[in-house]
Amino acid sequence: MADELVLLDVHVSMFGMRVRIALAEKGIEYEYREENLANKSTLLLETNPVHKKIPVLIHNGKPICESLIIVEYIDEVWKDKSPLLPSDPYQRAKARFWADFVDKKVLFFFCSCFCLSVFVKKKIWRTKGEELEAAKKELIDALELLEGELGDKPYFNGDNFGFPDLAIITFYSWFHTYETCANFSIEKHCPKLIKWAKRCMERESVSKSLADPVTVYEFVLMLKKKYGH
Amino acid sequence: MADELVLLDVHVSMFGMRVRIALAEKGIEYEYREENLANKSTLLLETNPVHKKIPVLIHNGKPICESLIIVEYIDEVWKDKSPLLPSDPYQRAKARFWADFVDKKVLFFFCSCFCLSVFVKKKIWRTKGEELEAAKKELIDALELLEGELGDKPYFNGDNFGFPDLAIITFYSWFHTYETCANFSIEKHCPKLIKWAKRCMERESVSKSLADPVTVYEFVLMLKKKYGH
Repeated sequence: MADELVLLDVHVSMFGMRVRIALAEKGIEYEYREENLANKSTLLLETNPVHKKIPVLIHNGKPICESLIIVEYIDEVWKDKSPLLPSDPYQRAKARFWADFVDKKVLFFFCSCFCLSVFVKKKIWRTKGEELEAAKKELIDALELLEGELGDKPYFNGDNFGFPDLAIITFYSWFHTYETCANFSIEKHCPKLIKWAKRCMERESVSKSLADPVTVYEFVLMLKKKYGH
Repeated sequence: MADELVLLDVHVSMFGMRVRIALAEKGIEYEYREENLANKSTLLLETNPVHKKIPVLIHNGKPICESLIIVEYIDEVWKDKSPLLPSDPYQRAKARFWADFVDKKVLFFFCSCFCLSVFVKKKIWRTKGEELEAAKKELIDALELLEGELGDKPYFNGDNFGFPDLAIITFYSWFHTYETCANFSIEKHCPKLIKWAKRCMERESVSKSLADPVTVYEFVLMLKKKYGH
């Protein structure tokens, strides 16, 4: 029996993009279903009753939730093609560390400035003034740490595209929005990181999975309009 | 050459306890070094320059950070004895999901009420009134979800103590503090979870690794005294 794979996702989600890249790296076909977060499907609520969030990968009827956990699952089930995590335990720990780092530190900026739930609840479009500057500094500090870890390596694991690259690159499609809203240049602070991002974008698995930066920005503008300035 | 293992830790840390349980499950000897978070050692700052947090496991000179990542590392390096993660990818994903859940949802309460950084910066001992009630409700909801997932199984993975048990049980030594500070009974809401906790405590790896609940409470009282009510 062929595997039945359904991905519940939202096009502009950096978490969903991770799963799409992993599936593309492995050459796995799947059915994509775009969710409307303002009106979540019964299937999403049933398959992720705890967090009620995308992405959810449903494999032969079994749901797997949380983007990095889904990516590890994909890597373990389809282990023979394009391994995403290194085989050495120490290198695996480092790969997991940097993927976790980006969720803790870079995502912080996203939450500060654009988080939908905060946005809707508090009618905040984005933080301003001192608070925005503090969040911006924290983002730049985090990106500079990534730049330092990358160094002159082509990818975070070394010579091969893998788990941390996949976890981090999906934020790249949001960089334009960050830069436009907060008025700064990431490339000025982190030129190696931008070179790495462009290197990743040369991979079809990445370029076909990432949302267009303009689409992301329009999505944010749409939110702004919908929920008030 | 014998493995050289050093654990930088703080006795009352639920994150450090996870690593101690994993090492005990595997029967691995190590050197324990208690850190003073008010005056962190050079070794801690050098081995975890990104987060500057315990626990850090230093294995033959190589540092591994972040408790769940360390536990996976231990499970991968010493894979022949007492496996912590199941071998089936779907069961592994579920184990990771619940370990991640406890950090996202139960830890939230800890941060709301006791977070040292918030505490020190804002001179808040703990939230009060409506805010405390909201945090308490969120904690109970999270614990009830854990209770539901556990069901009538002896352990979260089924018949064997493993990764999610280890990730969750370390919060048990903080339950007394939660209950005393917020004036409620966890057992009243989650009797199965308390039975499971007592079952876990019958394992020497757990009972010897967990801080005594009274010690945890005294630690919190010490913080309260040090930083003001």
